[in-house]
Amino acid sequence: MTLSENKKLPESIHIIPISGLPLIEPGDDLPGLLIKALNSSGLRLIDKDVLVVTHKIISKAEGRMIRSSAIVPGAAARKLAEEIEMDPYKVQLILDESVRVVRKRKGLIITQHQNGWICANAGVDFSNAPDDYYVCLPLNADHSAQKIKQGLEQYFGVKIGVIISDSHGRPFRLGVSGVALGVSGLPGLVDRTGETDLYGYKMQNTQVALADLIDNAALLVIGESNEGVPAALIRGLLFEGSDGSGKELIRPDEKDLFR
Amino acid sequence: MTLSENKKLPESIHIIPISGLPLIEPGDDLPGLLIKALNSSGLRLIDKDVLVVTHKIISKAEGRMIRSSAIVPGAAARKLAEEIEMDPYKVQLILDESVRVVRKRKGLIITQHQNGWICANAGVDFSNAPDDYYVCLPLNADHSAQKIKQGLEQYFGVKIGVIISDSHGRPFRLGVSGVALGVSGLPGLVDRTGETDLYGYKMQNTQVALADLIDNAALLVIGESNEGVPAALIRGLLFEGSDGSGKELIRPDEKDLFR
Repeated sequence: MTLSENKKLPESIHIIPISGLPLIEPGDDLPGLLIKALNSSGLRLIDKDVLVVTHKIISKAEGRMIRSSAIVPGAAARKLAEEIEMDPYKVQLILDESVRVVRKRKGLIITQHQNGWICANAGVDFSNAPDDYYVCLPLNADHSAQKIKQGLEQYFGVKIGVIISDSHGRPFRLGVSGVALGVSGLPGLVDRTGETDLYGYKMQNTQVALADLIDNAALLVIGESNEGVPAALIRGLLFEGSDGSGKELIRPDEKDLFR
Repeated sequence: MTLSENKKLPESIHIIPISGLPLIEPGDDLPGLLIKALNSSGLRLIDKDVLVVTHKIISKAEGRMIRSSAIVPGAAARKLAEEIEMDPYKVQLILDESVRVVRKRKGLIITQHQNGWICANAGVDFSNAPDDYYVCLPLNADHSAQKIKQGLEQYFGVKIGVIISDSHGRPFRLGVSGVALGVSGLPGLVDRTGETDLYGYKMQNTQVALADLIDNAALLVIGESNEGVPAALIRGLLFEGSDGSGKELIRPDEKDLFR
C-alpha cells in the first residue's frame, strides 16, 4: 500500500460482486461453493486478489444459528429486558455472546463481544435467517478466513487474501459501515509511521485500517439485505503478504477513550 | 464484465486513481486542475461517476492553511497544553476550530469541530504542507464538493457525485478510515429500513453510510502521505441522484451514547 515511491502510482482496483451461491445450510462446504460460483462467473483468481465474504454465510455454514425456543432467559436478562423494553430471549442471547455491557438504552444494548468487537446486540442478526433463528457472529473469524483462503489457493494455485465482513453502527457518525471480523493473507492494519510526505515531514502514529477499507469497498456490492451477493472480489490491491488477523483492528481497552 | 443476467445484481465497480495535479496553492482552480488531470489520463466522466477528493487539496486551494507564527496561545490553551504536554500554538488552533473538547489525554485532544465532526486535533493536519503551516478542515465541505461537481458536470456534460474525504481514527477499532466530510450529487446515507430479505424479514432501522463506504474505497488508492494521488474516480455505483450532504452522516448528540 505504500505510495512513497513516487513512480509507483496505484493502478485501478476492481470490486467484483460474487453471486450464484445457494442459500447456505449448516455444514455446507463454503470454499467449494465459492469456487463453483467463481467458475460459473468465469472468474479465475490471481495473486493478491482479496475475497470479502459476509459473515452471515460463514455463521450459517458453521451452525452459529440459535433457535429462540432453545434460549432460557435468566433473572439478569429478564431484568435488563424489562428495563430497556427488549425481548428477554434476545437479551439472554446477547449476554451469552458478550463479556460486558458497554452501553444500553431502550431497545438497544451495546456490548463487548467475547471476541473483542464492540457493537450493537453482540452482532446478533435477525435478518437473512429462517424464522425463529438468530444468527450469531462466527466463533473464530480468522480461522473461517483461513479455511476459505486455503481452499481457494489450493484450487487456483495462487496467493490471496480473505476477509470475513460485517457492518456495524459506530459512535459519532450515522449509518453502518464495514468491519473486518476475520482476516487472512493480508495485513489488517498498515503502519505508515515514518513515511515521508512531499514536504519531507515524517508521519507520526499513522496506522491505516486496510482490512476495514477493503471491507467497506466490498459493501458497495454486497447487499445488506440480500444473500444474492454474499461476497466480493477486490482485484488490484498492493499489499505485502501476511498471516493477518481481525484482532489487529480491535482497539485495546487501554487505548480507547470511549468505552 | 457481465456476471449475471439478473439486472438487480450489481456490476463491477472500478476505483481509478487520479494523479497529475500540481502542488496546490491558495486560490488554485481545482475543477480546472481536475479536468486537466482527467484529460491527461484519458478519462472522460460518465453519469453516476463519483469523484472523491482529499480535503487536503481543498483546504489548500481555499487558503485554510494557518501559519503557526500567526497564532497567539491564550491562557486556556496554555493551561491545557501544559496539562497534556502539547504545543500551545497547536492547542490554541485546535480550540479555535472546535466547539468543545470531548476527550483529552497526553498528546491528544478529541474535539467536536465547529462543523460537527468529532475527531482528533480538530482535524488539523501537519503533513503535506509547507513548513510552519497547519492545514485545517474546509469551512464548508459540501460547498467545496458542489463547486467541483458543477465545474466537472458543465465540462463533461454529465451528472456526477463528489465527496470531500478525510481519514479519522475511531473508537473501538485501530487505524484510520475514511470519513466523507462533504457530499454533493449522491446521498450520504441510504435508508434500507423496510426492505425485505430472502426470508421475508423486514429490516429495521438500517441506514447504510454510503458516502463513507465510497470514501473508504477511494482511500485504497488515495495516498495518505502523498499528494501524488489526491483524488479517485469511483465508477459503476448505483445510486439515486440527490443534493446530498456530509451533514447527513454526523450523528446528532441525542443519538450518540459515546460523547
